[in-house]
Amino acid sequence: VTELNTKRLALVGTGLIGASVGLAAKRAGAESIRGYDADAEALETALRSGAVDVPCASVADAVSGAELVVVATPVALIPSLVAEALSTDDECAVTDVGSTKGDLCAGLASESRFVGGHPVCGSEARGPANATEDLFEGATWFLTPLPTTAPEPYGAVHGLVTALGAVPTAIEPRAHDRLVALTSHLPHALANLLVNQAGAGRVEGHEPLASAGGSLRDMTRVAGANPSVWLDILLANAAEVVSALEDHRKRVEELEARLRRGDARALRGWIDEAARNRQRLLTAVYEGADDLHALRVHVSNRPGELAGITQALGSERINIEGFDLDHLSAERGGTLTLLVAGRENATRAASLVEKAGYGVVISSATRDPQTT
Amino acid sequence: VTELNTKRLALVGTGLIGASVGLAAKRAGAESIRGYDADAEALETALRSGAVDVPCASVADAVSGAELVVVATPVALIPSLVAEALSTDDECAVTDVGSTKGDLCAGLASESRFVGGHPVCGSEARGPANATEDLFEGATWFLTPLPTTAPEPYGAVHGLVTALGAVPTAIEPRAHDRLVALTSHLPHALANLLVNQAGAGRVEGHEPLASAGGSLRDMTRVAGANPSVWLDILLANAAEVVSALEDHRKRVEELEARLRRGDARALRGWIDEAARNRQRLLTAVYEGADDLHALRVHVSNRPGELAGITQALGSERINIEGFDLDHLSAERGGTLTLLVAGRENATRAASLVEKAGYGVVISSATRDPQTT
Repeated sequence: VTELNTKRLALVGTGLIGASVGLAAKRAGAESIRGYDADAEALETALRSGAVDVPCASVADAVSGAELVVVATPVALIPSLVAEALSTDDECAVTDVGSTKGDLCAGLASESRFVGGHPVCGSEARGPANATEDLFEGATWFLTPLPTTAPEPYGAVHGLVTALGAVPTAIEPRAHDRLVALTSHLPHALANLLVNQAGAGRVEGHEPLASAGGSLRDMTRVAGANPSVWLDILLANAAEVVSALEDHRKRVEELEARLRRGDARALRGWIDEAARNRQRLLTAVYEGADDLHALRVHVSNRPGELAGITQALGSERINIEGFDLDHLSAERGGTLTLLVAGRENATRAASLVEKAGYGVVISSATRDPQTT
Repeated sequence: VTELNTKRLALVGTGLIGASVGLAAKRAGAESIRGYDADAEALETALRSGAVDVPCASVADAVSGAELVVVATPVALIPSLVAEALSTDDECAVTDVGSTKGDLCAGLASESRFVGGHPVCGSEARGPANATEDLFEGATWFLTPLPTTAPEPYGAVHGLVTALGAVPTAIEPRAHDRLVALTSHLPHALANLLVNQAGAGRVEGHEPLASAGGSLRDMTRVAGANPSVWLDILLANAAEVVSALEDHRKRVEELEARLRRGDARALRGWIDEAARNRQRLLTAVYEGADDLHALRVHVSNRPGELAGITQALGSERINIEGFDLDHLSAERGGTLTLLVAGRENATRAASLVEKAGYGVVISSATRDPQTT
């Protein structure tokens, strides 16, 4: 753990992210963490967990005497709270954790003490009760410094992010919004669009949602989640989300044209391109994805079944890189897919699972579009 | 297991589905299973596993003397093989397992002995080595009888499907294709489109695929999979896939319009609708989804960690309805999400996991858009 240089922090907003910043900063040597939250219960929870030392009754109270202020509220509230923090104290550095940066940074273009931030940590949980000191461990944390940003506040924010265990990644504010529109907001929008299209009506009496296969289930996992949070995010990044949707629509039209003219060659090229891109994504996410193997095991719906299998692997110290139970029904059981890095590990894992009485199928999870 | 009435079967195509039909039919009392596959190795594998009794050198040889013929080849080959089977023997019933039904059934509209079929079983594995006798247990198996279909062959196919453990579900052939275009082919196409858009280029030097969050990973799981199989499927069902894509495009345009005018009310309604539809999907897939609870546990990347947790639950006979490890990185570990039915079970499970030394967060997996 890197030692924190700015020892006196203020948290404006003590929900999941704010309280996790508090806990992680405490671990990194923070001496005083003042906190404010409009929700008294959230503030109380953060105080009890040690994420906050001094609960404050106002933003001004929290900010006074702090070297570094972290604004961690819903995106819609961030601009005014950042402005309030900057005007309350004329020395402190101020940062935020909102998921869009363009408009916010444009509104603060003449400020030297503000550095926009956005930790990319995908927890679906919310609230300070779910806060953990290791939430940011290894996570990308975007920082959006401006030409007017002074070195000292930038250093303070950068140092905080590093001390929290995250990887600071500087990016221009509008580019940040374009990037997250593509990697987070577009997928989220498509999940909602897809589940609403499938749920729009029956097909000759058949309910599409009831015959959903694995891909529809996977692709709608985030559909409808955290409505108010997502409403704010989509509105705050509307321009970039629209532009990603427009590009998506062009790609859909192109696919339609290829299907209409039965262009097998172009379609095959498109599928192969998807296989290569999926592989690039896996390589970035999983170490050893170049040699990742999938073990598929049919399991029944009995209690303890998963324990038997994972125990067998754990006892031999074989690490499971990915674990997915496609639970189909109580009577049918489901297919368990385990990802294991390295051919030798995969073979050892399969023989252990077989010894535990299960049939196993190994395949390479590193897809080669040329061989399938 | 229901006893099979047609004891003499022929399999034309002995890959994953054909060989699984053989194994399941054998369990249900089949007396003779003749098999043909253009791939000699696939046929040999099916013979060794007992999925086939009599390997045959031609379709005609396999069909001769069979009461019921199952054509289980890639979709592009099905029409000619069904026709060959029907012309070889003038008594046998013939069915297939292809994933599209409209054109095939239209071409066989005057046939009384053909019944189209499509088992919905999502295995990603392929080939007869992966065949299992319980592949179809509890699965929906679409049947597409026509006005010209005679009762006897229909009864034979229906009886086979039931004996294999599946649930026969009759549907008009074009309606079938519309339904699967929506529930399977559209999601698959969107996975490819999405990963190709995210992979299309860098955003100011940043690689979008490298900063992929959980939703992009989930939503591109099937991207690029089994290129030749999917090329055939998309081409065979091109008209219905195009129509689903057109509808999708209209929905995307509507979303763009709402974002452009910042229509918070309409956007909120759209997200709430997605939450309700996702809930309907979960209710159909998981029993007890009305009272499903998610336990989130932060786990490190150490071998044996999953064993400790699942073992703790298994020992108390608490059943895990869903299991998902969002593996983020070696240094950071991941978030394990367990789904458990019933509030009491979830609370028990959480205290067991806590006793095993982990922090747990319980939340209702039955999302209520009004409360989040």
